[in-house]
Formats: sequence, structure tokens, C-alpha cells
Amino acid sequence: MDTHLPASRDDSDLAKLYRFELISSTYLSQRSLSTEATPVAMERQTKSASPALDAGFPPLVVVEFCKDVQQELLDWMVTRLRAGKSVGGAELLVRVAADRMGRKRVLHVGATKERLLEAAELSGIRKPNQEGFLSYFTCKNMQDFTGKDNDMDSLLSTAEKQRLVEHELINMRAIEFDKHLPGYDKLTLYVGKSLIQKCMNKGVIVQMYPLHERDTLKRLGHDWYQNLVAIQPLDDIRSYFGEKLGVYFAFLGFYTQALVPPALIGIVYFLLSWDNVNKHTFFAGFNLIWVTVFLEAWKRRCNELAYGWGTIGMQTVEEPRAAFKGTMGVNPVTGRNEPTSPSWKRNVKLYGASLPIVMVCLIVAFYVMLIYFRLEFWAQGRYKLDPTLFNRLLLFVPTTLYALVVLSMNAAYRVLATKLTNWENHRLQSSYENQLIVKLVLFDFINCFMSLFYIAFVLQDLRLLRISLATLLITMQIVGQMQEVLVPYLLKKYKKWELQKQGKENGEEKFDDMEMQKRQAKYPGTFDDYLELFLQFGYVFLFSSAYPLAAFWALLNNVLEVRTDAFKLCRVFQRPFSHLAASVGAWQVAFEVMGVIAVITNCALIAISPQSKSFFPESSTTELLLIFVGIEHLILGAKLCIAYLVPDTPEWVETALAKIEHQSREALKHDRSQQTRRLFEKGSSLDIDFPERSGPVETEI
Amino acid sequence: MDTHLPASRDDSDLAKLYRFELISSTYLSQRSLSTEATPVAMERQTKSASPALDAGFPPLVVVEFCKDVQQELLDWMVTRLRAGKSVGGAELLVRVAADRMGRKRVLHVGATKERLLEAAELSGIRKPNQEGFLSYFTCKNMQDFTGKDNDMDSLLSTAEKQRLVEHELINMRAIEFDKHLPGYDKLTLYVGKSLIQKCMNKGVIVQMYPLHERDTLKRLGHDWYQNLVAIQPLDDIRSYFGEKLGVYFAFLGFYTQALVPPALIGIVYFLLSWDNVNKHTFFAGFNLIWVTVFLEAWKRRCNELAYGWGTIGMQTVEEPRAAFKGTMGVNPVTGRNEPTSPSWKRNVKLYGASLPIVMVCLIVAFYVMLIYFRLEFWAQGRYKLDPTLFNRLLLFVPTTLYALVVLSMNAAYRVLATKLTNWENHRLQSSYENQLIVKLVLFDFINCFMSLFYIAFVLQDLRLLRISLATLLITMQIVGQMQEVLVPYLLKKYKKWELQKQGKENGEEKFDDMEMQKRQAKYPGTFDDYLELFLQFGYVFLFSSAYPLAAFWALLNNVLEVRTDAFKLCRVFQRPFSHLAASVGAWQVAFEVMGVIAVITNCALIAISPQSKSFFPESSTTELLLIFVGIEHLILGAKLCIAYLVPDTPEWVETALAKIEHQSREALKHDRSQQTRRLFEKGSSLDIDFPERSGPVETEI
Repeated sequence: MDTHLPASRDDSDLAKLYRFELISSTYLSQRSLSTEATPVAMERQTKSASPALDAGFPPLVVVEFCKDVQQELLDWMVTRLRAGKSVGGAELLVRVAADRMGRKRVLHVGATKERLLEAAELSGIRKPNQEGFLSYFTCKNMQDFTGKDNDMDSLLSTAEKQRLVEHELINMRAIEFDKHLPGYDKLTLYVGKSLIQKCMNKGVIVQMYPLHERDTLKRLGHDWYQNLVAIQPLDDIRSYFGEKLGVYFAFLGFYTQALVPPALIGIVYFLLSWDNVNKHTFFAGFNLIWVTVFLEAWKRRCNELAYGWGTIGMQTVEEPRAAFKGTMGVNPVTGRNEPTSPSWKRNVKLYGASLPIVMVCLIVAFYVMLIYFRLEFWAQGRYKLDPTLFNRLLLFVPTTLYALVVLSMNAAYRVLATKLTNWENHRLQSSYENQLIVKLVLFDFINCFMSLFYIAFVLQDLRLLRISLATLLITMQIVGQMQEVLVPYLLKKYKKWELQKQGKENGEEKFDDMEMQKRQAKYPGTFDDYLELFLQFGYVFLFSSAYPLAAFWALLNNVLEVRTDAFKLCRVFQRPFSHLAASVGAWQVAFEVMGVIAVITNCALIAISPQSKSFFPESSTTELLLIFVGIEHLILGAKLCIAYLVPDTPEWVETALAKIEHQSREALKHDRSQQTRRLFEKGSSLDIDFPERSGPVETEI
Repeated sequence: MDTHLPASRDDSDLAKLYRFELISSTYLSQRSLSTEATPVAMERQTKSASPALDAGFPPLVVVEFCKDVQQELLDWMVTRLRAGKSVGGAELLVRVAADRMGRKRVLHVGATKERLLEAAELSGIRKPNQEGFLSYFTCKNMQDFTGKDNDMDSLLSTAEKQRLVEHELINMRAIEFDKHLPGYDKLTLYVGKSLIQKCMNKGVIVQMYPLHERDTLKRLGHDWYQNLVAIQPLDDIRSYFGEKLGVYFAFLGFYTQALVPPALIGIVYFLLSWDNVNKHTFFAGFNLIWVTVFLEAWKRRCNELAYGWGTIGMQTVEEPRAAFKGTMGVNPVTGRNEPTSPSWKRNVKLYGASLPIVMVCLIVAFYVMLIYFRLEFWAQGRYKLDPTLFNRLLLFVPTTLYALVVLSMNAAYRVLATKLTNWENHRLQSSYENQLIVKLVLFDFINCFMSLFYIAFVLQDLRLLRISLATLLITMQIVGQMQEVLVPYLLKKYKKWELQKQGKENGEEKFDDMEMQKRQAKYPGTFDDYLELFLQFGYVFLFSSAYPLAAFWALLNNVLEVRTDAFKLCRVFQRPFSHLAASVGAWQVAFEVMGVIAVITNCALIAISPQSKSFFPESSTTELLLIFVGIEHLILGAKLCIAYLVPDTPEWVETALAKIEHQSREALKHDRSQQTRRLFEKGSSLDIDFPERSGPVETEI
């Protein structure tokens, strides 16, 4: 026989002790979290985890176990979730719900307000206080934040509550009694392992997601994507979806606004069909400086937001990724024992294997591109020689082939890149994502822009360049909108229809929203959205002197993109857990690098353009080249200067931060000096020899 | 009649009150700072500032008043320096000494150990504790820092003690009773004005300097500059002269070591008289990458030092400069009222006036250079036509003229730049210095390098380039050593001789060291030393492909420079106050910019060299140019990548800092959660509605 207490297997006395502790602590923790603690409640505690317990609290997070989960594990988990921290519990409110088949395998998790406030305080959350200054939240002086009327809902948004609960769930760790997951002798544990993560890795927990709030969502959607002109309600977005998504949409909006001037100029060029080099030079020059200004301005804007949202300069000790493997060791920073793996291993893999492989892929992609152009010319040549129908049809073969190949290559490479990055075994999610970004961005850069480079600088065919630019940009945008929104939306529609059908069969009158949310797809994260913007940015600015209208198309797309992305988040996918973020992270660098490359390409483009030759008739090719190299260096220098001179943080934010810093330091100083004084008053143990006062001596020195 | 109490003029009651407070507090503060407080001592206090008081403490800082200082001010200042903080005192130990004429106008200032420790704690000083981890020093847990034996001298170096005393002196501020400096009705005060700064600005205080420790200095000198091979005792330097100078000498040493490889290669080139382009290309390429590596490596080294010295990531609220003018206002950060001036004014001056003026100066310097070359050619032409003696002599005229003009221009510009920067009225010393650096660096860059650029790219005369490089570099170094060390040294020698003569006349047996230190010149600061290194850096790397031997000369000079600078500091000048520093500041940027320019110049140099033409015989000039532009961009890219990939802080430092951060946060969390728990236990005033436990209900969801 084996009970749900793993320890009992090892030594029954300890087990008893443990069980007692666990239960009593559960009782205690419940008590400390509630005003009433009737014997009934206590009695209820002791027969652990009856699903009835904690009924009637608003659920924040849903944890769904697999269909064939062991009842033993479920009971143990519930007890554990409710138990006191002292015995490795999470002190959360749990309610066990059944799925449509009646299997009790879905946990609705919530928390009392004090628990949330405590968690908020411990997580070092920062909030603007009554004077509007950011400072660390503490329950003790909650009044400073909420004002006279102590309503806490204004203090913590649901997204924050859900994040806190998630954090508490993930941080419920194995203690010495936990040898393995109860009911799963194979799934062994070590002290400090996150129980939830273990279950998720092993598929015992199928999914964990926060719940939508329908009416809030309706209001948000109305302000956000249902009218095409209004500016985005960033603070609402942030408080519903969290800072990371807030930053993404802020960036999308800011970038879209930044596209307006180039778009307008582009239209003028198009309408007046201006087409001589000095005008294009002007346009290119404007764009290149504009890009720098935009990126700098964004940094400032982003820091303003980050200040308002309390994420500016945040320091969070990142937990290692769930998938991170390593030999058990001690974390040098936290002192907690957890899997560790020396960084040199990672670097060897990174520079020894991943880098070369990626390089090979890039080269392959490059050659595929060359082959495409070969075929293209071959087909054109053939058609020129004898324009039969067959040859005419043949003309379309290379492009279609190339398109297909590129698509499949992209898909294959994505798999490869992900596999490689997993294999590199990064400890932190952030570095994992950055590595993935670098890999994918490099490849997509080759795929999307190499052909254009080839056309521009090898074939030097500006007409063809313009055409392919337009086609690539516009098709990308249309396809993007399709696969990003339409496909998932239809899928969801189908699921809903299916669910309603089932509902009718089971004779349910009202639609089961909970079940719907369970079935919705998970939000894949902002990566693809950023990547799309990044590529679009490239199409617009790399060859802006060749195709001024690009900015206009981009603008048009982004005005739509804001809405579709918003719609996608609100209506199509499960609600994502909110994540803290103070900036767009690695994407800032990516965009800046693209900006630098744009300078080079544009200058080169203008240099090779036939008009520029005619514009400087008397100067030789060498001189011409020198001139343009000079211009290029000047623009690059200007970019550098702007980037260096424009402060990344607005002055008022700087001042505010400095003030906070100063106040806390002063506060510290004050009670410190009090301490010190007291210390010296009651002549401390320090061997301080005081300056002996020798009588009046006229010291002549 | 007017007493030394300014307030008495306004309203005698308040004045009495104030006098009483001042005196009693002086008494109290003295008491709190001493074990014995005899009525005698107390009595001594009341008749304020008898010079006999506080005899026999080790003096740290000397404050010298002007010859005709009002006795009233002196007395008042002494009282004030001794008085308690509560009445605007500094709680320091003061001894009044007389100059050689017997005038009592020199204050020797010291402090009790507790006072120093208190000041150290309040200044937020960080020290490595027993486990070798950096953490904020507090008297309470002093044991963690000093270990069992509580000797404090090991804890605070004299330099630190002197800095703390200086800080206390400068921060003795006027309170509401101080309408003006006693005895000087003209010199009005406002609440919060630093009394010492006021006196210094108005010349009432002539100078303020810390005292040397002869034996420590002897030991230091022995390890430092008396042997030519040993590495510098950086920690001793830092603990005697402070962090800023420590960083300078660390940088000098590091840079000198970094010069070894290029110097060696240069010698090889010189000996084998290699002189073809691909070899030079290799050398240039190596140098350019080497520069980047060196600058990155320095950042890491510097952060290591800064960690060891507790200055890494230090946040200090900089006091406004003494010379900063503005209308009285409230500092938004500290809330203290002080002169303020809006930043837009500064910017208008900066970009509206200073920038154009500087530009004009640069252009003038440029034209002077052109004129010089005109003259040069004219003279040479004349000599070619008829080689008379006169014409031969005439050959030397242009160069000498140019040298003189450049020297005088430099001097004039320095004055101008300083005037401008003063006029810009920067609030902080740091920004003041940065602005000055930028101005001077720009001008010196033109002066030192423009002629070389002209020779290299306009005349394209590599031989001449090499010669002028050698002459410029070597002469600069010799002249530098001369005027930097020899001149001040001789001056000091003379003063010493003079002093000894006087001493003999007055029939003193032993040499008066105090008087000597008073007469020594003030250390002018590290600016010129850095500038010299910066220009040398330029000479070595801008045209390294033209003159490989440059690195060798630089190396030779720097090995000497270390010693001469050290000698200068130890023997020639007054001891400077120690300043905190975590890096070389703006100079890092300056060196990096120079590195980038070096890439451009070297590539261009190789591109235009005749050999490179012969090296690619089949390729046209255009292709050649394209090749070199390509190479240049590649190298620049490589630099960027290196700078981006190499982390600025070594991993172990990162970990240590993270650990400190983590520990403090954990500590905070712990007692926070305790508080919170207690708060909730005794049902706080918060309107928390607890989840009501409805009885067992099987909730089906």
C-alpha cells in the first residue's frame, strides 16, 4: 500500500510528523488567511483536499491536468497548494472542477487579498504613490498608494494578480520529504525543484492559463480595435495583458506614427513622379536621419512608459528555464541548489557548432537565390528565342519554384534554429530568446533581402528592384495578415461551433465560456509580430531611394496591424500570462543595425545610379565613388552623434528617479545615524582612543 | 559694535538664544565626541575658539585664510567647525596655527574616529567584508569589515579620512541666522550656502589641502617609481591618492602593456625593413582589431578595480559646482534650496555660441596649416631655383613659424575654451569637465593631426608623412616630460632652498615640512596626462601602416611616463584630495572614437599607396577603391561585433554584484514579510473582505 505521502515510504515516524505538520500548517495558514476558523473548517482540512473547500472565490488561474492523472497526485497537489509555506505549500485558494466528461482534473486557483498584497510586496513591485512618485509597494504604508479609500483592486490589476499567482505556483518547490511525485514513482524530485514545472515538463499538467474577464475585455476591445482612428489605450492594454505586450503595442503605434512623414513624402514623389538623383538623395538622406531620430525618440518614450508602469531599471533574479538541464549544484547568487552548467559549455556549443551550422544555412540560402536568378535568365532567354506558349508558361516556373523553396527552407530552418537553441541549453529565458532572435533574424535577412541586394548591386536594374520590392512588401503583408489572424480566427469559430453543438446535446442552456477558454489556442508570443515589423522596416528603408512609396504601404498595413493584433489577442487566443518588460529588448539593437545597413545600401544605390553620373559629369568614377563614400561616412557619423547626444531618458524621468533614490538614501541615512549615535553613546565595544585633551598649549606649527 | 554673531544685529533675543544654542551644542557635541567633559573643557568651550583647544590630534586637512583675514571671521569659523550639526556646525576637531609671520590664520582640521566612521557610513561607503564581498559599511556591524581586531586604520585609508573631512567642511552650510560672513558685511549668505565655498570664492580662504604622510609616501615611492621594472602598487596608490588617480595610473599601465605587441611587430618591420603593402595591411589590420580588444579589455579590468575599490556602479548625488550661478530655487531632487538655472539656457549657450566659436577656431587652425604648407613649398621652390645661404636658412623659417603659431594658438584657445565653459555655467563638475574635454580634444586633434592628414591624403607623400610623424611624436614626448616634471620640480627645489634659508635665519634646527607643503604648487589634475596619452594614441594608430615604429617610441615614453607622473605626484606637488572614480569617464569615448577614425585613415592610406595598385594589377582604380571600402566596412563591423559581444564586466564581478543585490533584497523581504504577517494578524485597518467559506458545494464548472 502507498499513501499520497511519499515520505511514508522512507520512515513512517517522520512521515507521520510530516503529515501532521502539513495538515496543521494547512489549517494554520487557512486560519491566518481568514477571520473564521471553525472546528468544521479545521475538520474539513484534515481529510485533505475535498474539492468543496474554498468555494466561491474569484478564480484567477486555471491548471488543467492530463486526462489520466492519478487521483493521488491531484489530492496531494491540492493539499500542497493550500498548505503553509513553512511546509513547502503555496497558501493559495484552490477549487477542483471537472471537465465535460466529469473528470475532476481542473484546478481553479485564486488567492486572498492579503496573500496577493504580501506576494506583491515580496515581488518588489513598484507603484506610483499619491504624489505620483514611483516607490516600492509595502502593505505597511498602503495608504500612500491607494489613498484614503483602501480599495485594492485599483492597486493591483487582474493581470498583476494572475502573474503573482503564477509566480507562487511556479515557486512551490520540493522539500526534503518529496522524493518523487505521488502516484508517479518514475518522476523523482530534488529539493528546490518546482513541482508545477516538473508536472508540466512530464505532461502531467496539460496547460496553465489565466482567465479572461469578459466585460473588461469588451470595453478594452471597444476602445482599441473597433475604431480605426483612435490612439491605443496603452495603460488599459498594459493592465489587462501586462507590460511586455503593452510595450509591443506602444512600439507598433510609435513606429506607425513615425512612418507618416516618409509616407507623405513618398506619395508626393509618386504623384509628381520625381525621378532624379538629387531628389532621391535628399529623400534617402532624410529617411536615414529620420530612422535614427525615431529609434532614439522611441527609447525616450519607452522609458517614460516604463517609469509609469514601474518597470524602469527593474532588477529581477530570473529563475532558470524549466527546460534547462545540468548537474545539481549551488547557484552562486541565490545559494539555492539547482541544476547548473558551466557557461563555457554553452559557448563551445554556440561558437563551435551553432554558428558554423547557421553560416552554412545562410550560404545555402544565398546559393539557392543565385540558382533562382540563373533559372530566371534561362527562362527569359528561352522565351526571347522562341515565344511559344510553353516557354511563356515556363517564365513563371522559376519565381514560383523559388517562392516554394524559400517557404519550405524557412520552415525547416525555424525547426533547426529552435532545436539548436534548445540544445545550447541556455539557463535564462531571456538569453534563450535573444539567441533564437539572432539566428532567425540573420536567416530571414538573407531570405528577404539578398535577392534585392543582388538585383540592386549585381544586376543594377533599378526598375526590377522597384517591382520586386513592391511585390515582396505587399505580398508579405497580405499573407501575414491572413495566417496571423484569419486562420486562427476560423479555427476558433469552428471550436466554438463544435462546443455549442455539444452543449445542445448535453442540453445546456448557456454557453460554457470556461470550457471555451480551455480549448482556445495559446498566444504564441510577440516574436513573430516583432519579426514582421523588422522585415517591413528593412523593405521600407534599405532601398528607400529606389522605391519611395514603400513607407506608404507599410503605414497602411500597420494601421490595420494594430487592430488585427489587438483582435487576435482579445478574441482569438487564450489570455496570456502578463510579463514584465521595460523595453523591446534585443529588437532595439536589431532595428539599429538595420538602420546602419540602410545608410550603406542607400548611398551605394545612389552612387551606382546612372543619374548620379550625369549629375557630376566632370568627375571621374573614382572621384564619384570617393564623394559617396564621404557622404556615407558623414551620415554614419551624424547617426552616431545623434545617438550619443540624445539622452535615452527624458529629464523629468531622470529627476524623478534621482529623487526617489535620494529620498530612500536619506531615510536610510537618518535612522542609520540614529543607530550610530546610540551605539557610541553607550560606549560600544570598539577600541576607540579619543583625542586626549592636553591643557592649553599654544601649538606653533 | 558688532559681535561675531550675525543674528545679534537683527533681533537680540533670537541672537541670545542662538548664541546659547551654538555654545551649548558645541559643548554637547564635544562631549558626545569625548569621554571626559570636565567643567574646564566646558568652560573652555564657552569663550569660543581659543586656539589651544583640541591640541594633539593628528591633523588631516589644512585650511589657510588670507593674510588680512578678520579675527572675527576666524573665531566664528572655528566655533562653527566645532559646533554640533544641529546648529549648523561640522563637529570637527580644529587647531589654529600661525604662519611664519606669527599670524594665526591656518586651521589644522581633524576628526575623532567615531566622527569619521559616522561620516563614512553616511557617505554610503562600500567595503569588502570578511568574506570578501562588497557591502555598505555600517558602524553597527563593523566587525564584518575589520574582523575580530577592531583596528579602524586598516578600514579607512588616510585619503578616505581626508575626503570625508573635506566633505564635512564643504557641507557646513549657512542656517537662517547667517545673513553674511561675520566681519564681511558685503559677503551675504543664504540658507544652504556652503560657508567654506563662499570663503574660497571670495578669496577669504586662500587654499585648502590635505597633508602628506612622509613615511607612507617614502614607502610608496620606493615601490612605485624608484625601480623601472616592477608593476605599479595600484592598491597603495589608490589608498594614498584616491580612486581617480588610481584609475589613471591603472589605465596608463594597462595601455603601456597593450603597446608591447605592436611595438615588437614594429621593431621587426623596422629591422627587416619590410615595406610592401600586404605586410602593412596585415599590420594595420592587426593594430585596428588590437585597439578594440584593448579598449574592451580595459573596461573589464577597470570594472574589476572599481569592484575591489567599492566604486563600481556608485551613485553619488553631485553637489553643484562652487562657481555655478543661478537664481535661488529648490533642487527638484534633494529639495534643498540652492541656485538653479534651467538647462535650456545652458543648451542655448552651448549650441548657439560655444559650438560656432569652436568651429571657427577649428577652421582657422586648419587654414593656418594650409598657409604653412604654402610657405613651405614657396621656400623649397626658392631654394631649388637659387640655393643661396639665405634661401637655405629660409627653409627653416616656415616650420619654426608654424611651431610657434601653433603653440600660441593652443595657449590662446585653452584660455578661450575655459572661459566659454565657465560661461556655459554647468551645474555639475563632471559635465563641466566633459564639455572642456570635448572642446580641447577637438582643437588639439586638428592641430596635431590635420597636417598629417594633409601630407597623407593631399600630398600623398608617405616618406614625408613618416618623417613628420616621427618628429612630432618624439618632440611631443620630450617636451611633455620637460614641462610636466622638470619645470615644477626645479620650482619646488627653489622654494625649498628659499625656505631653508629663511629657516636658518630664524635659527630653526629642523626643516619645516608643514610650511613646505603650504608653499608647494597644487596638482593640476589628470586632464593633461590623459590628453597626452590620447594624442600619443592617435600618433601611434592613425597612421600605423605608414610608421610601424611609432608604437615602440610610445612604449618607451610611457615606461618613463609612469615614473615621472608618480614622481611628480609624490615629490613635486601638494597632496591632492582623493576623488571617487569608477572609470576614465569621457576619455573612454574619446579613445574609442579615435579607434574608429584610425580604421578609416589606415584603410585609405593603404588604398592610395602605390604598392596596393601594383598588388592588384588587373583591377581598375574603381574596383580597388571598392575593395578597400569593403575592407574598411568589414573591420568597422568586426570592431562593432567585438565591442558588442565582449561583456564590459567580468563574470565573477557580475555574480558578486548580483549576490550582494540578492542578499540585500532577501534580507529586506524577510523582515518585510514578518511585518506584513504581524500587520494582518492584528486585523489591520484595511477593508479586506475575506472569501466566505460557503459549506461543501460540489461546484461543477
